[in-house]
Amino acid sequence: MADPAEDNEDEAFGITDRLVAEVLAAVEAEDAAALSDLLEPLHPADIAHLLEQIDARDRRRFLLVQSGPLDGDILSELDENIREEIIAQLNPTELADAVRDLESDDVVDLVEYLGDQQQEAVLEALDAGDRVVVEQALSYPEESAGRHMQSELVRAPEHWTVGDAIDFLRSDVVLPDQFYHIILVDPRLKATGYVTLGRILSHPRAMPLRDLVEDTFRTFHVTQDVEEVAQAINHYHMITAPVVDDDDRIVGVITIDDAMAFLEEEAEEDILRLAGVGEGSLSDRVIDTTRQRFPWLAVNLVTAIFASMVISLFEDTIAGLVALAVLMPIVASMGGNAGTQSLTVAVRAIATRDLTGANVWRVIRREVLVGLINGLAFAVVMGVIGIIWFGSPMLGAVIAAAMVINLVVAGLAGTVVPVLLERLGIDPALASGAFVTTVTDVVGFFAFLGLAAVWLL
Amino acid sequence: MADPAEDNEDEAFGITDRLVAEVLAAVEAEDAAALSDLLEPLHPADIAHLLEQIDARDRRRFLLVQSGPLDGDILSELDENIREEIIAQLNPTELADAVRDLESDDVVDLVEYLGDQQQEAVLEALDAGDRVVVEQALSYPEESAGRHMQSELVRAPEHWTVGDAIDFLRSDVVLPDQFYHIILVDPRLKATGYVTLGRILSHPRAMPLRDLVEDTFRTFHVTQDVEEVAQAINHYHMITAPVVDDDDRIVGVITIDDAMAFLEEEAEEDILRLAGVGEGSLSDRVIDTTRQRFPWLAVNLVTAIFASMVISLFEDTIAGLVALAVLMPIVASMGGNAGTQSLTVAVRAIATRDLTGANVWRVIRREVLVGLINGLAFAVVMGVIGIIWFGSPMLGAVIAAAMVINLVVAGLAGTVVPVLLERLGIDPALASGAFVTTVTDVVGFFAFLGLAAVWLL
Repeated sequence: MADPAEDNEDEAFGITDRLVAEVLAAVEAEDAAALSDLLEPLHPADIAHLLEQIDARDRRRFLLVQSGPLDGDILSELDENIREEIIAQLNPTELADAVRDLESDDVVDLVEYLGDQQQEAVLEALDAGDRVVVEQALSYPEESAGRHMQSELVRAPEHWTVGDAIDFLRSDVVLPDQFYHIILVDPRLKATGYVTLGRILSHPRAMPLRDLVEDTFRTFHVTQDVEEVAQAINHYHMITAPVVDDDDRIVGVITIDDAMAFLEEEAEEDILRLAGVGEGSLSDRVIDTTRQRFPWLAVNLVTAIFASMVISLFEDTIAGLVALAVLMPIVASMGGNAGTQSLTVAVRAIATRDLTGANVWRVIRREVLVGLINGLAFAVVMGVIGIIWFGSPMLGAVIAAAMVINLVVAGLAGTVVPVLLERLGIDPALASGAFVTTVTDVVGFFAFLGLAAVWLL
Repeated sequence: MADPAEDNEDEAFGITDRLVAEVLAAVEAEDAAALSDLLEPLHPADIAHLLEQIDARDRRRFLLVQSGPLDGDILSELDENIREEIIAQLNPTELADAVRDLESDDVVDLVEYLGDQQQEAVLEALDAGDRVVVEQALSYPEESAGRHMQSELVRAPEHWTVGDAIDFLRSDVVLPDQFYHIILVDPRLKATGYVTLGRILSHPRAMPLRDLVEDTFRTFHVTQDVEEVAQAINHYHMITAPVVDDDDRIVGVITIDDAMAFLEEEAEEDILRLAGVGEGSLSDRVIDTTRQRFPWLAVNLVTAIFASMVISLFEDTIAGLVALAVLMPIVASMGGNAGTQSLTVAVRAIATRDLTGANVWRVIRREVLVGLINGLAFAVVMGVIGIIWFGSPMLGAVIAAAMVINLVVAGLAGTVVPVLLERLGIDPALASGAFVTTVTDVVGFFAFLGLAAVWLL
């Protein structure tokens, strides 16, 4: 047995390297009882995490050895591509058993990308009422609040008192696993406010609920982008975001824990896109990863060839002074780095809504100024290095001037490119890097070799 | 007045460009009444966001024009450097008035980086009890759970019933603004479990609280890293994380909304560090931004000069065939990009605990294999381009071979470097980029020019 007291601090949550090894040994020995003992104390999120860390062959054998139906919560917690792999190994009945007790948003999350046959099987396994809810959610656009909300919530007529609410909750009504607010509705089910459970518990039975509502009450439309809802939950410190339909009737809620997971995924996506990795995850197969990264490298190749063509314009200049070939990558590299700095700040500021129409000009001016000051600083450094290394003040002057030009252009392109892409409806995290690097490579080589051709030869 | 119905969807939350303009006009006209009308309907988080979008001069005038004391919640919501700027403009009494009603974790967050005199003034303004709590929190290490927890929580003896809890909450006890659990404690204040308010509300008065506790109950030690606590909150879908001292006595809680904000900041920091921007924010002054970015560019300069020195080893080779100077940046650039892809995946997998001792060798093998396959693909492409562009099959072979070598090395370095840095206790997000780029530049130039020297000349 794994002893939690021996957990290595560096390891993830409840899963130590030793536990992984013990689980693999039990799977190897096809010892269902030992496996069950090892898994019994673990949270579904931990079992999912463990499954993500072993390879596909071991996962297949794990599923064969483990006894009894798979816990639907484990499926919910899995990375999307590993989840697909495991679902593909379940027959429709096993799958239906696994999802039956999940909340509606988790069921939707599980079935939305399943094949028709599997999706059908899962939907048929649900109660009629749950099925309607899931089908309704699937009818909303991907990434909308309606698609990601859970329909389980507690609402009450706005004329109720604390006592009415308590009596209702104590009756044999089915309640969500977790809920933190009661949402007040008018006779036409229009949401009018919400009350925290803490306030209900701390007031006498006769107190009308409407006197206890929170100051601020915001609702979100079913078609609203779920990322916007998650950002609002974070911004306004909400625990529950009520989702309403066209008639302002409450149809579901998005809870803060789902919003938190969602924002984590979005930040992750931005990081990976900025690095040209797309949707990659450690659990992808080698061939999938290779395919995902290929297009980004191909774009980079086009960029690099473009830069090479600029260099080839100056072959005679380089032939006349080979030192130029030695120094030219420095100017391009510094521009590329400065451009990446500016564009990363801009891309994130757009994502977090800190860069808006109200301050875009100020930000552009600021980045250009930063580029100018750092350009001047490195111009001095490189000028001196040029003189010392190659003994040529003019070569020093050329590289210094090219450095200033390229760092100013880097600041400008690093801000303008993401802003323009955003206005054109293109994800700036995805496409900015290639554009900005092309600009700084071309400008860097052209300025350095061009000035050299004019001043030196 | 800003009409919310006219909100531009692209704009941030409650703040439209027009509202910003109207606020600036009221500040310009020194019209305190108009300013107050504009701000009245806004959430403190929105006012903070508005202050972040205008420049320092306008913020100063805003503070002079707005009437009455500044809302402490606005201070809490501000970006750190703008908050410092505004706090510097408040006298100790104004500052003390602003913070008096904040929860203990928000007060700690505000005062932890204040100068001694201002910190003293704030602490003196607090009630004796609150002051002790804040001073206690400040005695824990930065970034620890104890430093970031709020002390306001609701606990109950474990022998209480639902009725006891309701009577207690309805008495004139001071309750936290928001709370979602009651934490059960034994006679020595050791935390033994918690009950959600939903469960209390849905059970009869006679039900013992200990029969309603959640299955899983985890506590966190005051000195534990707050990022670990935030990750556990996300991983286990907790709403409240109880924080205990050395004797397992409950001393505070970390709430999910704070954990969410914290993880957002951490992801943001990783993105900025990967791009060599450090702690930057749009609201920094030009000179601060310039200073923050300078060291990263300086590191890059050293890297680039190192690469140039490799090139200079081959000056004679280049003088013999200038086409080499044209093509060599392509190999280095492709290696740099592939290395960035691998290292970004590795850095994030380390941060999210998906890359562990259990799978590190598998991940390294995978990245090398991905590099090899993509290297072979681009070797073919570049070989053909080399032949067509320069009419030289041998030049094509040189660039093809160098491409394979550099992409394999990129996959290897992109994974090994972050893992090693992590083991050495260095933040891999901060330092991996420079190391990996140095490796791919040096290997790229050396392989290409070296093979050219051997095969072509």
